[in-house]
Amino acid sequence: MQAKYPSDSLTTLTDLVLPGETNPLNNLFGGELLARMDRAASITARRHSRRVCVTASVNHVAFNRAIPLGSVVTVESKVSRTFNTSMEIFIDVWIEDRESGIKNKANEAIYTFVAVDETGRPIQVPPIEPQTPLEKERYDAALRRKQLSLVLAGKMKPNEATELKALFS
Amino acid sequence: MQAKYPSDSLTTLTDLVLPGETNPLNNLFGGELLARMDRAASITARRHSRRVCVTASVNHVAFNRAIPLGSVVTVESKVSRTFNTSMEIFIDVWIEDRESGIKNKANEAIYTFVAVDETGRPIQVPPIEPQTPLEKERYDAALRRKQLSLVLAGKMKPNEATELKALFS
Amino acid sequence: MQAKYPSDSLTTLTDLVLPGETNPLNNLFGGELLARMDRAASITARRHSRRVCVTASVNHVAFNRAIPLGSVVTVESKVSRTFNTSMEIFIDVWIEDRESGIKNKANEAIYTFVAVDETGRPIQVPPIEPQTPLEKERYDAALRRKQLSLVLAGKMKPNEATELKALFS
Amino acid sequence: MQAKYPSDSLTTLTDLVLPGETNPLNNLFGGELLARMDRAASITARRHSRRVCVTASVNHVAFNRAIPLGSVVTVESKVSRTFNTSMEIFIDVWIEDRESGIKNKANEAIYTFVAVDETGRPIQVPPIEPQTPLEKERYDAALRRKQLSLVLAGKMKPNEATELKALFS
Amino acid sequence: MQAKYPSDSLTTLTDLVLPGETNPLNNLFGGELLARMDRAASITARRHSRRVCVTASVNHVAFNRAIPLGSVVTVESKVSRTFNTSMEIFIDVWIEDRESGIKNKANEAIYTFVAVDETGRPIQVPPIEPQTPLEKERYDAALRRKQLSLVLAGKMKPNEATELKALFS
Amino acid sequence: MQAKYPSDSLTTLTDLVLPGETNPLNNLFGGELLARMDRAASITARRHSRRVCVTASVNHVAFNRAIPLGSVVTVESKVSRTFNTSMEIFIDVWIEDRESGIKNKANEAIYTFVAVDETGRPIQVPPIEPQTPLEKERYDAALRRKQLSLVLAGKMKPNEATELKALFS
Repeated sequence: MQAKYPSDSLTTLTDLVLPGETNPLNNLFGGELLARMDRAASITARRHSRRVCVTASVNHVAFNRAIPLGSVVTVESKVSRTFNTSMEIFIDVWIEDRESGIKNKANEAIYTFVAVDETGRPIQVPPIEPQTPLEKERYDAALRRKQLSLVLAGKMKPNEATELKALFS
Repeated sequence: MQAKYPSDSLTTLTDLVLPGETNPLNNLFGGELLARMDRAASITARRHSRRVCVTASVNHVAFNRAIPLGSVVTVESKVSRTFNTSMEIFIDVWIEDRESGIKNKANEAIYTFVAVDETGRPIQVPPIEPQTPLEKERYDAALRRKQLSLVLAGKMKPNEATELKALFS
Repeated sequence: MQAKYPSDSLTTLTDLVLPGETNPLNNLFGGELLARMDRAASITARRHSRRVCVTASVNHVAFNRAIPLGSVVTVESKVSRTFNTSMEIFIDVWIEDRESGIKNKANEAIYTFVAVDETGRPIQVPPIEPQTPLEKERYDAALRRKQLSLVLAGKMKPNEATELKALFS
Repeated sequence: MQAKYPSDSLTTLTDLVLPGETNPLNNLFGGELLARMDRAASITARRHSRRVCVTASVNHVAFNRAIPLGSVVTVESKVSRTFNTSMEIFIDVWIEDRESGIKNKANEAIYTFVAVDETGRPIQVPPIEPQTPLEKERYDAALRRKQLSLVLAGKMKPNEATELKALFS
Repeated sequence: MQAKYPSDSLTTLTDLVLPGETNPLNNLFGGELLARMDRAASITARRHSRRVCVTASVNHVAFNRAIPLGSVVTVESKVSRTFNTSMEIFIDVWIEDRESGIKNKANEAIYTFVAVDETGRPIQVPPIEPQTPLEKERYDAALRRKQLSLVLAGKMKPNEATELKALFS
Repeated sequence: MQAKYPSDSLTTLTDLVLPGETNPLNNLFGGELLARMDRAASITARRHSRRVCVTASVNHVAFNRAIPLGSVVTVESKVSRTFNTSMEIFIDVWIEDRESGIKNKANEAIYTFVAVDETGRPIQVPPIEPQTPLEKERYDAALRRKQLSLVLAGKMKPNEATELKALFS
């Protein structure tokens, strides 16, 4: 299978924050943001694999900055690394100042999707070839996250997790 | 005020069609699509004007192609022309074939927004400078649509609508 | 096919504006109003044709007046003219003052629907016979709008658009 | 205060049943119908009283007939009787056969609303004068329902409930 | 069929009140509360009967206390009595003070569900055996409500409604 | 501050899966499940701290099993460990077989919330005292997760992460 670039699966979901999508503090409700990221990430997974894809896990979401009512929010997602049948998707969330037009990072998140065939069984996806320095950095870190996830799930022995071991020794 | 380019206000809203957004024929419900276009267009108007903007009218929406459940839909909007305090926004809607990745045009729409100041009064917006052939074509057609809208509203005499008159004589 | 009257397809959708349906200015969100009009108009089209109907286009929507949170909003739609397989639907939107009970016009809109048979192919609809002066005025104007739409789409030569030509000469 | 007629507060909410409003049996979800009736009834209460109104109770709702996906549903509500500061609202729900256009009764419901002043305290509402035989029948039955509700709440002694006593003796 | 206890079907739905679920007074919208109670009650009916269940009627809902935006609301439902193929479900709604943690009763409601077989025909449900004093009280009152409902529907003669007759004589 | 038990903050949100909450495969949409877990977890955080709480991060969500349309889903959340101003919340998601009544684990998730005072600044929360073996196991693992999160964020040197170091050496 031919490798693809992260930019091939870049998905942009720019949208408003309306009152029906806020929490009682008048900021974007966390659950609504999680849903928007899930929608964008599932499109990214589909664009990379050309397959039906299902959410396997949400590995990390950092809510660094509240997103106030009326904001313009951009959710951008790209494949950061693939592992046989699964894809790690990295998501950046930006808010945009109306007067200056400047975009600031609000959150980031990492989701994992699996591609499945018609019978619902996992199926191989194309490899990925990172290009920009940030894509390469995320590509490398994805392996550590993968090992960590296997160790925590008891599916890999800690001393086999070479990337992680190096980190802690 | 310095002119801006249509690409400065380009807004991309890529999203899925989930079951809760369909009509009884299992296609994207027309009202939901109109709402998504309104959201994208209002962001475009805000990006161009750096002002609070309100929908003034929906001038034309063509529903050429039904958008089935499960589709990936991309709504793209750009300012096509400005008129003192108002902006004509041109919206293209694409659907994407999962297997081939090819995007096909599904619909297009034209909305008009007005920029307002803190007291809610219309306020001038920057002019626009079309660049691509398609942007120029839409820029020219916008004047005909504007004259037409004024004639139909009884705010311009037909024989003053020079662009339209040329068309019908 | 026997002609019908516009009143035969009159559809009334009276509803509240709740917080989950507003924009950040605390008025009814434009996209939500577009969706309500689409729902009412599709019922009107179905009542006139007794067929499954699909939205073909939104020809014009004027947002003249913001509709504040808590308002009682009435969407009224009627067939204004038919063209073989399509129906032009005229929609009036009213808001109602709580203390006086007086209704004021907030918006109006024109949608076009097409009736389809079981295989999805357009099928003829009954003709319409306008009765009130307003129905007759809208019936006449519908022909000009139809010609205009054909001219703008390049499907009719301007000099064949007799109704429009008369207007501009 | 001058009496009003039930027809003065008649509210009509005609709408579709879309997939996002169904239960797993593909019929209108009961909770969604309860919400639509609440919206219509609150408008009726406001039209009768010209006051802010709050739901006091739902006295009876009979779900006689499932309402399938794609139906046209009409919710009609009118004041059936007033009691100083409260209004009993009677709601009829109809579904409409697409081919024949015939409307059939699907459900009926009885809600009670109270009018309040600016400080939130209950305030008197105009009396009602039933006109049609059905309005008169519902007006009479409303008194029995009121006494029953008071008896069941322990706010009236059974032997003071003259209307009910007559029924059971 | 073996009897069950009310606690076997206890269903707890604790949730927030977000802005998109409020009315214009910033309290939980009545229709949204009715929908949440319907969801909890239908789960209770299913847990008691192990069958598909449909809402037959809403017999009584008292809105004693407004539930403000941001509240934690708990809907608790249990079967109060069964009648061959139908189940009366009693629902208590609580709101919780954030600082003290104290729960106060906000509303209560009574719904009736019917269990159906694969062909949609009503089917027998297990009997219920109340245990706590409150369960016994509600069990007894359910018979009076049942007779009342039959009398009001003209399906039982008042003098056959022994429980009710005793009340009024 | 006096310690609390995990059971003090146990929150149960049992609800249905309706068509408007599904993905195109007719299972509960991932984003909707993420939102339900966020709602339950934020109630748990509030019950433990008696403070306003905001989502700080989603540390891990495993989607092990698809949840089909029509399912009864129970989201249960409890505080697993506290760290000065933050609370780790552990969430278990169960689906229930209609005929047997047996509950099976569908997913689990870990969210972190921070308690804030009136000015929005983080404020100390009561400590937690785990009681059951499972609560103790999750309490211990929470420290490893915390260290890991600090290491990955560059806020702790790997060799200071004593719990993790032990794991990998």
